[in-house]
Amino acid sequence: MMFTENPQQGDPVEAFRVSSEDAFDASSQLEHSPKSDSLKITSIETRLFQVPLPFVMVDAKHGNHHHFQLVTATVTLQDGTTGTGYTYTGGKGGHAIAAMIHHDIAPALVGTDGTDIAARYDQLEWHLHYVARGGIASFAISAVDIALWDLRGKREALPLWQMAGGTAKTCKAYRGGIDLGLSQSELLDSIRGYLDAGHNGVKIKVGRPDRNEDYARVAAVRQLVGDDIAFMVDANYALCVPDAIEAANHFKQFNVMWFEEPTLPDNYFGFAEIAEATGVPLAMGENLHTEYEFGLAFDHAKLSYIQPDASNCCGITGFLKVCKMSRGRGGGMPVCSHGMQELHVSLVSAQPNPGWIEVHSFPIDQYTTRPLVVEDHLAVAPDTPGTGVEFDWSKLAPFEVKF
Amino acid sequence: MMFTENPQQGDPVEAFRVSSEDAFDASSQLEHSPKSDSLKITSIETRLFQVPLPFVMVDAKHGNHHHFQLVTATVTLQDGTTGTGYTYTGGKGGHAIAAMIHHDIAPALVGTDGTDIAARYDQLEWHLHYVARGGIASFAISAVDIALWDLRGKREALPLWQMAGGTAKTCKAYRGGIDLGLSQSELLDSIRGYLDAGHNGVKIKVGRPDRNEDYARVAAVRQLVGDDIAFMVDANYALCVPDAIEAANHFKQFNVMWFEEPTLPDNYFGFAEIAEATGVPLAMGENLHTEYEFGLAFDHAKLSYIQPDASNCCGITGFLKVCKMSRGRGGGMPVCSHGMQELHVSLVSAQPNPGWIEVHSFPIDQYTTRPLVVEDHLAVAPDTPGTGVEFDWSKLAPFEVKF
Repeated sequence: MMFTENPQQGDPVEAFRVSSEDAFDASSQLEHSPKSDSLKITSIETRLFQVPLPFVMVDAKHGNHHHFQLVTATVTLQDGTTGTGYTYTGGKGGHAIAAMIHHDIAPALVGTDGTDIAARYDQLEWHLHYVARGGIASFAISAVDIALWDLRGKREALPLWQMAGGTAKTCKAYRGGIDLGLSQSELLDSIRGYLDAGHNGVKIKVGRPDRNEDYARVAAVRQLVGDDIAFMVDANYALCVPDAIEAANHFKQFNVMWFEEPTLPDNYFGFAEIAEATGVPLAMGENLHTEYEFGLAFDHAKLSYIQPDASNCCGITGFLKVCKMSRGRGGGMPVCSHGMQELHVSLVSAQPNPGWIEVHSFPIDQYTTRPLVVEDHLAVAPDTPGTGVEFDWSKLAPFEVKF
Repeated sequence: MMFTENPQQGDPVEAFRVSSEDAFDASSQLEHSPKSDSLKITSIETRLFQVPLPFVMVDAKHGNHHHFQLVTATVTLQDGTTGTGYTYTGGKGGHAIAAMIHHDIAPALVGTDGTDIAARYDQLEWHLHYVARGGIASFAISAVDIALWDLRGKREALPLWQMAGGTAKTCKAYRGGIDLGLSQSELLDSIRGYLDAGHNGVKIKVGRPDRNEDYARVAAVRQLVGDDIAFMVDANYALCVPDAIEAANHFKQFNVMWFEEPTLPDNYFGFAEIAEATGVPLAMGENLHTEYEFGLAFDHAKLSYIQPDASNCCGITGFLKVCKMSRGRGGGMPVCSHGMQELHVSLVSAQPNPGWIEVHSFPIDQYTTRPLVVEDHLAVAPDTPGTGVEFDWSKLAPFEVKF
């Protein structure tokens, strides 16, 4: 759906305004006016896609994934330049995200300066605050923020890896499976596929109801890949703290690089307990959606890796705030990522403290004009001005959902 | 929009399912089946209303409120019984909430046991988790959870105040203004109106750009109401911690019962700093949406009053979890409320540690068949089976918005 500037549309409740000698108007829009009309946002188009997955992907707590949802936001300035951003989900929330962009965000942003990204970010934080602070709003803001960075890069002829820090244009990349539903032999087949595709890091899901199955699968994968491949496990917050401690102690012998989301992401102090009791490096981030949640994680969770996802931590602006925190409160903790590898390759490569990007099992990059490039085990950031993520709309068209 | 059971509808991606000897199906629905078919949820109808306010209401950080949004959810069981729940916003997010109920919640709940409220609550927590943990999902879950409690009360012929604890059927009630946009003389007029309507507690907004105006308004209101009226102030998180400390120290001489949201709700440790530095009682809750956020507040924020809102803390089930925490980690902290007085009167009266309900400026109760009853300064809970909140749909009809 397209939201477009409509100067004829007045404020329908203007008549109710209190006339008052010293009225205080908290929503004055003056500060948002662009320096030049050509920089003004004239429209935001929101689209929703429900894309089938190649097989039913299963993890411990999200249930079965049959498809992923992609929500795109295309922002157009008065001078005709456009930028496209996006977010994704595991199959729920897409309609709500699209509705928020169309009904709440677009009306606030149309008419404002689309090149002042920091001002737009702050504007949306306060505009949505009562129904925001995480959840759907963080996904919706992300899509629009990424669109503004795409616009900026195109206008300034800069690729994202340069805008985001410019340290490098390649980074380490591991393949993350959503494979708890696979049998052990299917699991090993899929790991062989990752290695054949040139990856030197792999992650599997754990959190089966019978923990001995987890243990057997972890042992079998380490045996298959040998000692030189980075190997991580991810419980999708399925375990209570004591069970997570037991599992972490068991995983130690297999030299896991990290244990991701052993317990509930809200349980910052529980993470610290697990880290202290076992010494196993912990990671999280995909379920942290605000700078305050990341702050609590940095200050209290004793993580070893931070894994923000620009699709749900308020976009590239939010991701870069986390990067900055990782070098302050985070003590230099390596910045990794979750999902949408086609974008995160630029963001992680650009940092002075890069970790590993996840090459996620939701194949968003297969619907772009440049699926992720991996050379000599390293993911390579695009040099295209903007985010470097251009959708192949014809490939997505069959999966569009009206909202 | 109505979501109805459709047994013809198969799983469109079943064909993609991995066939596997030991496949693990994380989304098995068996546990959700009702004991009897008559208890099965057969439909959920979602409606969205955008209701104009009598005047433009202003606070420090949410901007100008021209209308409130009301989202209703009506759940029907196979035996024909129905329950209606609702949530509200200050004007943003309504479409997203409605979309989430219709597209994500209804498809999961239709076919499940509508009388097992605790199971439905847990089911939704995990079903929505990736896009939830606060924000829009907490509002959407609230509307549906309240509907299930309404259903339960009607089936068991119990009013809400009895289901929710049964301690009493009346509680203290103060009038909360959204009045930062009023001139000082208009503000005093509105306070006179509150007293004339029989209230013995009043709250005003603070957080004007010039803090001397706040100070003058607080002094004038205390002078107007005298010493026997409970008087609270609410900054809607507009101040940084040092400014909040200065303001709190100034407000002391006017004997404010509490200083509400002096700073960002996410800044639990900042709240504690303000409380420790000034001794002024602090309150918050309208911006806490999960039991984890309430847990952080109880453990770290040094609050004196907790103010959950059943419309955004995951409904009556969420509200009662907070009540339970208030008597554990909260050390018996009085339970107050924010907004929708027509429902909270029952929830707060029912507790052994009741505080004050807010009689909020969004007049939802004026669109029900029983606007809030206040007798001898006390709010009186309805004895009607169910929540006791029945909408006057004909009054709401002009404000319905298609989504």
